[in-house]
Amino acid sequence: MPNAPSTPADLDRWLADHDVANLEALNEFLRIPSVSASSERNADTARAAAWLNGALARIGFSSKVMKTPGHPVVLAEWRKAPAGSPTVLVYGHYDVQPPEPLELWTSPPFEPTVRDGKLFARGAVDDKGQLWVHVMALAAHLGARGTLPMNVIVVAEGEEEVGSANLAPFIEENAKKLRCDYIVISDSAMFAPGIPSILSSLRGLAYFEILVKGPAADLHSGMYGGAVVNPATALSRIIATLHDSNGRVAIRGFYERVKPFPAAVLKGMKKLPHSDARFKKEIGVRALGGETGKTTLEKLWTRPTCDVNGLLSGYTGEGAKTVLPSSAMAKVSFRLVPNQDPDVVERLLRSHVQKVTPPGVTATVHALHGGRPWRADLDGLLYDAARRALRAAFGKDPVVVGEGGSIPVVGDFERILGAPVLLVGFGLPGENAHAPDEWISLDNVRRGARAMATLWDEVATRKG
Amino acid sequence: MPNAPSTPADLDRWLADHDVANLEALNEFLRIPSVSASSERNADTARAAAWLNGALARIGFSSKVMKTPGHPVVLAEWRKAPAGSPTVLVYGHYDVQPPEPLELWTSPPFEPTVRDGKLFARGAVDDKGQLWVHVMALAAHLGARGTLPMNVIVVAEGEEEVGSANLAPFIEENAKKLRCDYIVISDSAMFAPGIPSILSSLRGLAYFEILVKGPAADLHSGMYGGAVVNPATALSRIIATLHDSNGRVAIRGFYERVKPFPAAVLKGMKKLPHSDARFKKEIGVRALGGETGKTTLEKLWTRPTCDVNGLLSGYTGEGAKTVLPSSAMAKVSFRLVPNQDPDVVERLLRSHVQKVTPPGVTATVHALHGGRPWRADLDGLLYDAARRALRAAFGKDPVVVGEGGSIPVVGDFERILGAPVLLVGFGLPGENAHAPDEWISLDNVRRGARAMATLWDEVATRKG
Repeated sequence: MPNAPSTPADLDRWLADHDVANLEALNEFLRIPSVSASSERNADTARAAAWLNGALARIGFSSKVMKTPGHPVVLAEWRKAPAGSPTVLVYGHYDVQPPEPLELWTSPPFEPTVRDGKLFARGAVDDKGQLWVHVMALAAHLGARGTLPMNVIVVAEGEEEVGSANLAPFIEENAKKLRCDYIVISDSAMFAPGIPSILSSLRGLAYFEILVKGPAADLHSGMYGGAVVNPATALSRIIATLHDSNGRVAIRGFYERVKPFPAAVLKGMKKLPHSDARFKKEIGVRALGGETGKTTLEKLWTRPTCDVNGLLSGYTGEGAKTVLPSSAMAKVSFRLVPNQDPDVVERLLRSHVQKVTPPGVTATVHALHGGRPWRADLDGLLYDAARRALRAAFGKDPVVVGEGGSIPVVGDFERILGAPVLLVGFGLPGENAHAPDEWISLDNVRRGARAMATLWDEVATRKG
Repeated sequence: MPNAPSTPADLDRWLADHDVANLEALNEFLRIPSVSASSERNADTARAAAWLNGALARIGFSSKVMKTPGHPVVLAEWRKAPAGSPTVLVYGHYDVQPPEPLELWTSPPFEPTVRDGKLFARGAVDDKGQLWVHVMALAAHLGARGTLPMNVIVVAEGEEEVGSANLAPFIEENAKKLRCDYIVISDSAMFAPGIPSILSSLRGLAYFEILVKGPAADLHSGMYGGAVVNPATALSRIIATLHDSNGRVAIRGFYERVKPFPAAVLKGMKKLPHSDARFKKEIGVRALGGETGKTTLEKLWTRPTCDVNGLLSGYTGEGAKTVLPSSAMAKVSFRLVPNQDPDVVERLLRSHVQKVTPPGVTATVHALHGGRPWRADLDGLLYDAARRALRAAFGKDPVVVGEGGSIPVVGDFERILGAPVLLVGFGLPGENAHAPDEWISLDNVRRGARAMATLWDEVATRKG
């Protein structure tokens, strides 16, 4: 490979020299049980914000803890780059998932412990460890060179694990101050050990509740069965119309706005070392489903879907109760891909449901939640720089991966600040992000810091 | 109408003379809160058995309270008819439904109150009042004539409202003593005021739980949706295959054993003053369902059905949770008509479900409850006698009605004792049998007693 990039020797050296101190600091951060969902942990969550604020100030940032209606945001800035330099924004979160069930942890969740090259702790990978990768990279620049090649803003929120309700308003209110050219977020995973990965797409969401109502009250299924339209049967039949026999969503117009993924991205996905056999074993099924003729990764990352998330009707306790239920409810959600729109999907679903609902029952569709899909423009300067930086640190070209779920803040940042977002994660499959024994690979922490330190050089160079 | 029957004058006179005393006695019976489902009412339930036992002894029966593993059975016998006389068995129950919610009663449930010709009390129609109709009829014979034209056995159980678990074993154990030629049960309703009714069919039941299992644990619907077969979707699709577009059950072989109802019975049903508009209003729907081309009464009384009684899967609380559930459960039951067999239906359902279950999930079928359908042979002596007796007391030919639900004891009596069962009820639509403000028409109590008193003469005459 011509012109293979390498990580800058001065930054590498600084990181190597400060390796123990940096990991000790991360351990301090991980010891604070900043569980945003537990109000009895509010003092700890505030303590984590204060700790991070202090850490960013120590490396040379102007940092403050900013109030929100919920947990505070840590906002740190370094703006001493020469005029005309670009500005980058790094986002992460200092709150963590609840650690329960505690008995399933091999070592206590808030006592960071290294086993087999992995650092175990709640928040190790989600997201304190990955946020710390960025702090290390920034510290390397300021420590080794006393400067950064661009202006940098760090935004760390404390509510990511409880829905980020106050983040978008915070960005809106502080849009001027947060104005930037590039946004970088590390809160995801690499495809496999040793394979640096750029997350280039997120699916959107359109989540509904469908309520089918029949008779005014529950009826005796013996006395009335056979003459009354059964709401649970009707709901099942409605759900059965949502897919065709090829696993495609059978709502008219559903695929109309789907913009195919670039051929190169699809080709790249096919080359990834994915094993359906391992995937099936991991989730405990004998066969996979979904659209015929698509690979698993294609289905998960690039295709829209429809899933039933919940069903409730009639009698669900033990044994037999002969009730003809007066109503039946389903939670039904769609994962969306660019350029699908949750509002359009809502309209299409409403019209579909009305069309297939039999007389004798009524069906109503309540929209519960929606989020737009996201896809990166892989051709920009930021992505070129990221590819070189990751190759330099990991010795391998990064792969492009997708994510079937949603990270709503990505869309918020891009929409409000108008800057492209780079999602580059240093977790790994099996990292137990929301489960007991959460861990991050120490090798990834170290290589990640070298990669991110290199990234800033790459961005600045290319800009110049 | 030639040879119009009339009720015997001596019995009528005795009933008229003892009308006040008979209703006072019924009120005493109704005041005892014999709620079989409430263990704190066990003393009251025992008291009702003792009271009934005393009442039957007073009119000349040899009566005793017989222990069972649950509430006792009152068994009363009068066996002084001439040799060669037939024996009839009258069945009823002295236990009642719980009265709750008490606040919805106009007068207290255990303080019998007459309003507008209706006697209101818990148990008024189900079944103390109807059982008392028989006691009055038997008392009329013994009071007016000092004798009965046949041997009579009265069996009154105290567990009908909790499933009659100990009745079939009781009949089995005492089969010799209970040997009889005819069985009469009054625990049902007339089709409409003034229209005496013979209940000629009951539907059977085959009740199942279908459990569809997919991934070993709940998955995130974003991360996995689109590649994994969703158990809730799969269950809905399975349920959707249970009916065809004409509302018929679409399980191969399901109708194979269905023996059509006699043309005369179907013709009679078509003549009954049924209004679909009123039926729809009563249950609160705009349109009815079920098999196309059948009338409502035909569907309810003569046709087998399939109903979903319950659905449960995934997240069913408020709001949106993006879960791809690991399993989904449905309670599904079939109402059966002669000569369908719950065991055969179980076999057919199992094979159907296996056939329509997609790879990627497994479906298991658990049988929860089964009961055979029942149909009377309307041509026998007992039914001829009943038609004459009802016409004599009500001034109108009885109609033949069906019942969509099941009364399992009917099949038990017929099977164990080998005698035909006559179901003749004196309740009325809207009687609130299991609801607040339960009532029975006093006119029906009086005419019912005259009819049943006449019935014994008719049976004895025809036998002779």
